Amino acid sequence: MRVDVLTLFPEMFDGVFGTSILGKAQTKGLVSLNAVNFRNYATNKHNTVDDTPYGGGGGMVLKPDPIFAAVEDVLEKRNEETTTVPTKAPRIILMCPQGETFTQKKAEELVQEDHLIFICGHYEGYDERIREFLVTDELSIGDYVLTGGELPAMVAIDSVVRLIPGVLGNETSAVTDSFSTGLLEYPHYTRPPEFRGMKVPDVLLSGHHLNIDAWRREQSLIRTLERRPDMLEAAELTDKERIWLDKLRSETERNSE
Amino acid sequence: MRVDVLTLFPEMFDGVFGTSILGKAQTKGLVSLNAVNFRNYATNKHNTVDDTPYGGGGGMVLKPDPIFAAVEDVLEKRNEETTTVPTKAPRIILMCPQGETFTQKKAEELVQEDHLIFICGHYEGYDERIREFLVTDELSIGDYVLTGGELPAMVAIDSVVRLIPGVLGNETSAVTDSFSTGLLEYPHYTRPPEFRGMKVPDVLLSGHHLNIDAWRREQSLIRTLERRPDMLEAAELTDKERIWLDKLRSETERNSE
Repeated sequence: MRVDVLTLFPEMFDGVFGTSILGKAQTKGLVSLNAVNFRNYATNKHNTVDDTPYGGGGGMVLKPDPIFAAVEDVLEKRNEETTTVPTKAPRIILMCPQGETFTQKKAEELVQEDHLIFICGHYEGYDERIREFLVTDELSIGDYVLTGGELPAMVAIDSVVRLIPGVLGNETSAVTDSFSTGLLEYPHYTRPPEFRGMKVPDVLLSGHHLNIDAWRREQSLIRTLERRPDMLEAAELTDKERIWLDKLRSETERNSE
Repeated sequence: MRVDVLTLFPEMFDGVFGTSILGKAQTKGLVSLNAVNFRNYATNKHNTVDDTPYGGGGGMVLKPDPIFAAVEDVLEKRNEETTTVPTKAPRIILMCPQGETFTQKKAEELVQEDHLIFICGHYEGYDERIREFLVTDELSIGDYVLTGGELPAMVAIDSVVRLIPGVLGNETSAVTDSFSTGLLEYPHYTRPPEFRGMKVPDVLLSGHHLNIDAWRREQSLIRTLERRPDMLEAAELTDKERIWLDKLRSETERNSE
């Protein structure tokens, strides 16, 4: 997979692209990550990429021409570098608060692509023609305001790249992912068995695997009920578990009255 | 404000902490951002910070002792560096998929604090004693799986720091924030008025400010209705706007039948 990020702050990506899973995925040749400064595509003498909005009002707006030119140059370079004809059009993704909320499902969809291009504004608005005629997707990572699209792009890239087959080693792929089992994870404990008087639950030290599995499932259910009851709807539960959860729910309600 | 981040990958933060708004906020002395490698607090000879889980199963679990020791050292250093007695206890925040969903409201709450300490695991689980006896908050930035808590911590820090008075200059504070007006933003346009045949709407070039304001409000309402109808519930709307939106909604429904 090839990922290009259009940004005015390519240096923000150095630490993240070079480290840990994203760094290893590049070393293994599974992904190519590039940060492109779209200021290099400005056509005026002061290299400006934004301008005041038509119709007045505060803030600045990113001009369409440097962004269109940067995307076209990225596509041209990709075509020069690859010997085979690309079969799929790239996904061109605008990170913005008005976008569709990014979820694990969206990450699973994007990992099927050959080429992702992310466009990151930085507290400026985007000229509407970028949205309307250039991008294929608009994404938001959550309901909070950030200074730019750079961190959201890193988040989306991290969640997609880790799904590419071969990127996660055995040491990590075995970890149970909260959003794939449909329940929140049970509590984990490791050495020491007692730390400053805080003890590991006896059952985990018992060596009795049936009891351990039952305790973990129960803890997973309790935690999901307490923190994310919305997730229980879609979770795969046995009839016995549903009855037990209903009982637990009504007990909690009774106690809080 | 002081922000400490406990991580095994402090180099991931260099590009982000040093650039743009976060970089400027530090230069202005409005915030102090520090990445602390908690591997330095490992007590065994191989400097390991994780271990296999009690009760078996895949994955590794972060040991409690290095994290507790790192937090205590951060607090000690803070007390040495500040001449006045800190009046508020720090917020100790664990970034994890099981946490409370981070929102703009949470950012507005955290900006009132003097000291934030973020703990970032990296595909390992956390020993439950860290959750239970050390942290004050558990936060998740959205329903997707990432390789570590580092990007989520950066996201939370960015959204909090930009709210510190004096951090945003005039050039940015005037920008209308989607999540503070309760509606999505209207489309923005800047020069050129025509780009490859794509034109700026006539009304914005008209100079007629009442018409421009009316067009923008209408576009904001349409976009919110199309993309985030859930936001309309809490938005401040006039009676006339509510009636107009109801009409628009029923027209859309009729067309899609």
